[in-house]
Amino acid sequence: MRVLIAGVDGYLGWPLAMYLTKRGHTVAGADNYFRRDWVQEMGSQSATPICRMTERLEAFRENFDRNLRFFKGDLTSYNFVENMMRGFKPDAVVHLGEMPSAPFSMIDVEHTVWTQVNNIVGTLNILYAMRDICPEAHLVKLGTMGEYGTPNIDIPEGFFEIEYRGRKDRLPFPRQAGSWYHQTKVHDSNNVMFACRVWGLRSTDIMQGVVYGTRIDEMGDDERLLTRFDFDQSFGTAINRFCCQAVVGDPVSPFGKGHQKRGFLALRDSMQCLTIAVENPPSPGEYRVFNQFEEVYDITELAEKVGRAARSIGIEVEIRNLENPRKELEDHYYNPDHRHLLDLGYKPAADMDSEIALMLGDLMKYRDRIEARREVLIPDVRWDGRREKCSYLEEAPAMKKIRAV
Amino acid sequence: MRVLIAGVDGYLGWPLAMYLTKRGHTVAGADNYFRRDWVQEMGSQSATPICRMTERLEAFRENFDRNLRFFKGDLTSYNFVENMMRGFKPDAVVHLGEMPSAPFSMIDVEHTVWTQVNNIVGTLNILYAMRDICPEAHLVKLGTMGEYGTPNIDIPEGFFEIEYRGRKDRLPFPRQAGSWYHQTKVHDSNNVMFACRVWGLRSTDIMQGVVYGTRIDEMGDDERLLTRFDFDQSFGTAINRFCCQAVVGDPVSPFGKGHQKRGFLALRDSMQCLTIAVENPPSPGEYRVFNQFEEVYDITELAEKVGRAARSIGIEVEIRNLENPRKELEDHYYNPDHRHLLDLGYKPAADMDSEIALMLGDLMKYRDRIEARREVLIPDVRWDGRREKCSYLEEAPAMKKIRAV
Repeated sequence: MRVLIAGVDGYLGWPLAMYLTKRGHTVAGADNYFRRDWVQEMGSQSATPICRMTERLEAFRENFDRNLRFFKGDLTSYNFVENMMRGFKPDAVVHLGEMPSAPFSMIDVEHTVWTQVNNIVGTLNILYAMRDICPEAHLVKLGTMGEYGTPNIDIPEGFFEIEYRGRKDRLPFPRQAGSWYHQTKVHDSNNVMFACRVWGLRSTDIMQGVVYGTRIDEMGDDERLLTRFDFDQSFGTAINRFCCQAVVGDPVSPFGKGHQKRGFLALRDSMQCLTIAVENPPSPGEYRVFNQFEEVYDITELAEKVGRAARSIGIEVEIRNLENPRKELEDHYYNPDHRHLLDLGYKPAADMDSEIALMLGDLMKYRDRIEARREVLIPDVRWDGRREKCSYLEEAPAMKKIRAV
Repeated sequence: MRVLIAGVDGYLGWPLAMYLTKRGHTVAGADNYFRRDWVQEMGSQSATPICRMTERLEAFRENFDRNLRFFKGDLTSYNFVENMMRGFKPDAVVHLGEMPSAPFSMIDVEHTVWTQVNNIVGTLNILYAMRDICPEAHLVKLGTMGEYGTPNIDIPEGFFEIEYRGRKDRLPFPRQAGSWYHQTKVHDSNNVMFACRVWGLRSTDIMQGVVYGTRIDEMGDDERLLTRFDFDQSFGTAINRFCCQAVVGDPVSPFGKGHQKRGFLALRDSMQCLTIAVENPPSPGEYRVFNQFEEVYDITELAEKVGRAARSIGIEVEIRNLENPRKELEDHYYNPDHRHLLDLGYKPAADMDSEIALMLGDLMKYRDRIEARREVLIPDVRWDGRREKCSYLEEAPAMKKIRAV
């Protein structure tokens, strides 16, 4: 299949290009390097060294014996999107080309507005270009499990059958997203669903859990093929940040009580799932939703996992909870479905403990790069609008108990 | 109370300024006259003659013995919104300042993107300015009944208690909006709900039905106080367009089968409801939803009502269904709640038949202005992306039956 990856310079996009190519697909990618700028704005850098796109493409050609066709440009320009679709004629578009950070979107009005406009307009442009140029193609759109928030009932995959006052319908499951960024994914989901309904486009909307990991096998030993690995408050995800804290000897720091539950999956499993979605398109006009994660943990359990893995390679790790800069429930029910991908053949490859051990090994090589930006590991962007570094919390009895593992 | 109306040059905003002023509130308004441009772009004009804002403000002062403070500017400029909030310090903000047309938003990618950016960014700017300048103020945000679409179950007011797999929660009611414009209102609802949750703002989100009518009593006989009255495919609503068709002797034309059901309310009732919302603010942090309409009809019933009213003043009216340019259900269940406003004291003032008679009388005075733009009464913006005038449908037996009233 001909697969276009929007956001090919990012954490997921770059390894996906390799993964799909290895499986025989013809891949093209688009990016404008915004992720590099955002991370720089946060005063940080990727823990793994990332080379320029020209070098990445060179390394790609050397390792895979194929060119990765690359389009440099901005998805908010319809002209760019249209020319790219006409030039490449994709069978599938994997849309990873959005601003993916909750804290970044919460900084101030400029960041909020920019995030919502950037994400919404990019997606609208892709929908229009697909309608007019490749209406049979399949849009695999990256959403987030965060769209659902934490309702007090089970979370189905996008839709649910309900009975209300004696009548029944199948309706979209209500969304209660927890940041301006997460709201953009909800807006996108509504827009994509509408485009499928009125124009007969087909789409898989991926409600993805939190991804962790430094590598996939396809990268081999060529350092130029490494994907980026962020650890700042905005672009680093929970496990990735915890591993970086462990590597530089800082306390691993869940926010607040640390009982927030989320779904997680390894980078290699994310690649597998996205590929399954690409290779099994829905029918024309169908809008389907996959909840894409492997295991649910609360973040204290993750901190403990990282602690144990670190200890096994001789790093002593303390867990110290931080003030929660976010406004979110810290104790809640959480039981999302995730059957659709398993039904299509998804077989989780990674167990979290061995993946974390692998990550720590990789990150030890780049310890200096993390240490140089160590201060970005403590957040200062708060959901109430203040910008002020979070402090460690006094030790509460509940936390002590948790820590005594 | 000090009430700021965003969109004061529009169909609802201008009469609301008078209505609130008559009730003793101190009113300011903001606009940038976009509505005038959009209607011009559709090749149309208001059926009622509309004078320039300077003259409107002059007439306002003469009739109400008070100045209407006016801010000329664009809500998508944060600077403008911030300065206005600092200058006026409102107790309530009634946000009517959005692009309100489904067909206009469906024209092409430029109109879709412009609509979504304009509406979303204006609302985000208002939310931020309220947070930072007047966090106690109440945002009365105009949404639309169209956010809900036409589910096969009752439509509650914004939220519903449901049981799912043996657990219960109170959740936002799912939205299934039917145009890119209607989607912006869904996006806004999600954004406003989130701002109330994280910043403690208070808001009433008005799911308003289709408004009809030429006047409210506060306008008296001063023609300069008339509000605009649009009849083109984009900015004219169903009853208003039917009345204009009757006045110029064109067939009154429901789309498709004509069994689409919607909630309707008269302009004077819309004013009453918005005022009730303003005068009864929710608690800090509360986000509440009002379904604001009076009666549910299918559009064929409306066409017949207009036909009867026209006949009673000597105008013979034919009903001829048009191809439906939209993609929507033409036969569906529709049973939305509307208790909240009644509980707060809303007493419907207008009955539809007498209001239609009044409208026809008003519009006969401006028959020439409608006749001059008669061609805009037939739509050409189609939901599938084509732009092509709709044709009258062959008479189907079901329609014949309906017409024989």
